[in-house]
Amino acid sequence: MEENETLETENSQEQLVAIVEEGKAEDIGEFLENMNSSELAFAMSRLSNDERTKVLTTVSAEDAADIIEQLTDAQAVDLLEQLPPDLAAGILDELPSADQADLIAELSDNNAEAVLAEMDPDEAANARQLIQYEADVAGGIMVKEYLAYPLDATVKMIVDDLCERGDEYRDYDIQYSYIVDRRKRVKGVLRMHDLLMAKRATPIQDIMIQNPVFVPDTMTLDELVEFFDQHHYLGVPVVDEKERLIGVVQQAAVHEAVAEQRDDDYLKTQGIVGGEEFRTMPLLRRSSRRLSWLSVNILLNIAAASVIAFFQDTLASVIALAVFLPIISDMSGCSGSQAVAVSMRELSLGLVRPTELLWVWVKEASVGIINGLVLGGLVAIAAVLWKGQPYLGLVVGVALCLNTVLAVSIGGLLPLVLKRFNTDPAIASGPILTTITDMCGFFLVLGMATLLLDKLI
Amino acid sequence: MEENETLETENSQEQLVAIVEEGKAEDIGEFLENMNSSELAFAMSRLSNDERTKVLTTVSAEDAADIIEQLTDAQAVDLLEQLPPDLAAGILDELPSADQADLIAELSDNNAEAVLAEMDPDEAANARQLIQYEADVAGGIMVKEYLAYPLDATVKMIVDDLCERGDEYRDYDIQYSYIVDRRKRVKGVLRMHDLLMAKRATPIQDIMIQNPVFVPDTMTLDELVEFFDQHHYLGVPVVDEKERLIGVVQQAAVHEAVAEQRDDDYLKTQGIVGGEEFRTMPLLRRSSRRLSWLSVNILLNIAAASVIAFFQDTLASVIALAVFLPIISDMSGCSGSQAVAVSMRELSLGLVRPTELLWVWVKEASVGIINGLVLGGLVAIAAVLWKGQPYLGLVVGVALCLNTVLAVSIGGLLPLVLKRFNTDPAIASGPILTTITDMCGFFLVLGMATLLLDKLI
Repeated sequence: MEENETLETENSQEQLVAIVEEGKAEDIGEFLENMNSSELAFAMSRLSNDERTKVLTTVSAEDAADIIEQLTDAQAVDLLEQLPPDLAAGILDELPSADQADLIAELSDNNAEAVLAEMDPDEAANARQLIQYEADVAGGIMVKEYLAYPLDATVKMIVDDLCERGDEYRDYDIQYSYIVDRRKRVKGVLRMHDLLMAKRATPIQDIMIQNPVFVPDTMTLDELVEFFDQHHYLGVPVVDEKERLIGVVQQAAVHEAVAEQRDDDYLKTQGIVGGEEFRTMPLLRRSSRRLSWLSVNILLNIAAASVIAFFQDTLASVIALAVFLPIISDMSGCSGSQAVAVSMRELSLGLVRPTELLWVWVKEASVGIINGLVLGGLVAIAAVLWKGQPYLGLVVGVALCLNTVLAVSIGGLLPLVLKRFNTDPAIASGPILTTITDMCGFFLVLGMATLLLDKLI
Repeated sequence: MEENETLETENSQEQLVAIVEEGKAEDIGEFLENMNSSELAFAMSRLSNDERTKVLTTVSAEDAADIIEQLTDAQAVDLLEQLPPDLAAGILDELPSADQADLIAELSDNNAEAVLAEMDPDEAANARQLIQYEADVAGGIMVKEYLAYPLDATVKMIVDDLCERGDEYRDYDIQYSYIVDRRKRVKGVLRMHDLLMAKRATPIQDIMIQNPVFVPDTMTLDELVEFFDQHHYLGVPVVDEKERLIGVVQQAAVHEAVAEQRDDDYLKTQGIVGGEEFRTMPLLRRSSRRLSWLSVNILLNIAAASVIAFFQDTLASVIALAVFLPIISDMSGCSGSQAVAVSMRELSLGLVRPTELLWVWVKEASVGIINGLVLGGLVAIAAVLWKGQPYLGLVVGVALCLNTVLAVSIGGLLPLVLKRFNTDPAIASGPILTTITDMCGFFLVLGMATLLLDKLI
């Protein structure tokens, strides 16, 4: 079954290459239309640069925009960078405003300027407005596609407009429309629902919901999540500092932004820090991005291991200790990671405040003492079974126990402290944690062994 | 600013306790209504068991349901477990069907049965239907709140129904309603939009969209994501094996389910495996859940370290090697984690098939060779600078280089292989990776050192 699927996909990819080589716009467009989005992303990612460019230059701008929408941002940006600015601009014109801005923001500055200059002036103006916002505030998440009507509109005017321009509004969220005054300030919200029940001549002011909720363009993603938790709306109007309507944030877009942030955090935690990596990217880019993270880590590792060097005489006398150093280093890392994960989760749910260091420490230390005793006990038993030396068991057991308490304490507190200092806990927690716990772990084992050296030999 | 916020929250929590002690339903209800959801979750989580129970038993079932909705599932289930079944049932009756099912599914079996017996029979029947589904298929994600009208309805009938029962439908997704035949098979979809433009007497069959899209109750979460990527709908009808309409999956619910899965994966990757942990949970539950993961890891660690024990004579002769063992273990872990993360991401985006082992291996090995040379070079330089022994540098440098290639190969391939064997890569990748890379790393360093022993002393 799985084998077949792969064969099929490989075939469809080969077919795509063949069709691209023939170069008929309709054939390529039709072929791509029959693929679902992950098949499409897969096939496009496996084409060569030239083939990819050929696909986008052969099909219509609208079809090309459909393709771009199915790809990840990282893939889409790579593709657009390779196209001449006028072609890229034509494709971008066909995308929803939020997607336009996301992609243009990631183009190189020169390229972005060239593309904006070639775009439809209205679309370009919208995009220029949107790219000024950070990706994690309302202004960066909102879309420019929304329906707004003046205060003096009637039900008939709006229904007529909806009927007439229904096609154009196809991709809009037309669950709500917004009623604005002359200065574009939001004065009311109209639900589709309400239009149904009203007579055609009714002035819109009679049926709209007065004093509607709106959010500032500077509202953060966390606040937006909170907002949609409380209000079961599908979208909310966004206003600038003069309370003028400038866009709409859709509930779905907020969910999507959160999911992207989580993906990003996961990648950072695992050491993929310079943006997304796909294996179809050039080798040197992949390798250098990973190295930028690894080279910091190796320096931290060498620094931590220098503690061992300091105690090499002790180690030479009791060589069995060398077996336990990596165990203590790894296990403290595991215990610490668990505490980091719980803090990250509690922070994101608002179940802990960044200032509650004492509360977190007490909660972590109590788990750390129990788990430290169990883990220390296990490693002590292993040491005694192997070497028959109770003092060796004592040293490694006590060291692991103490270091577990230390690891969960640091792991629990680090994300709170980093958050207070506005440092990204997803990137920094891991390396800081393991460096400290490694140093302390090595110091505890070898320090105690030095003190008890006559019992250990 | 932040200090103030904390003080405020602490105050509001104290206030809540005071109000709960007075025990007036209206006071508690009103107080809780003024909090946003994360404040509420925070305050509730910090109450004692008795206080929490008192809050839920004092306020109305509707208010209690509002509170429950703001909490995480883990918190809500803990709360419901503590209530008498009839009270829990009364609260569950007020929740949307999907939330009901999620919570009941996590109650202990006895408790779930007792609660279902006390619930409103219709609500209980819905819940019983929903809890039969896994959480990650359409049946487990759908809601039972949807609008369905018979094929012979007219526009007037539907508009009248909407106007009359608008309050009841407040929480429904009324962007679409579904038109069903006598056997409950979906024959059409009606957009609000279309009702606006139609005359009241129009038979619904004239304006509904014929042959609407629907999905089977067994459709997986991945397929649903794909579906909503392709179709920009806000919801899709779900049918059983006889094609009868049994629910609606909302786009927002799919996004939410994906976000939950990601959170879950993150927690598992970090070693929080037995379900969510909050620091307000009982100490022994937190400690034992973490230990279940740590105790597996310590056994794997001891197994890996036994390689060092095997070479202790070599180590005793060249004690400097002991400094490099933890470095090689940690760095290989870092390189491997990066490869795991890229594979997990590519798998989730469909950019790699679980069968493409060779392709992944070639891509990873090439990055591994470059990064291995750089990292091996760095550690070799560190060794030579410290000890002035070129052969020591050679041994640790070559070992780290080879082990980096091995680590990225295993890290890249593991998630694909685990996925093919239906094992959760988020849980299993980390421990398997580090155990193998530790063993091989130790073996490479100490094995080479043994071969070159006369050059190293």
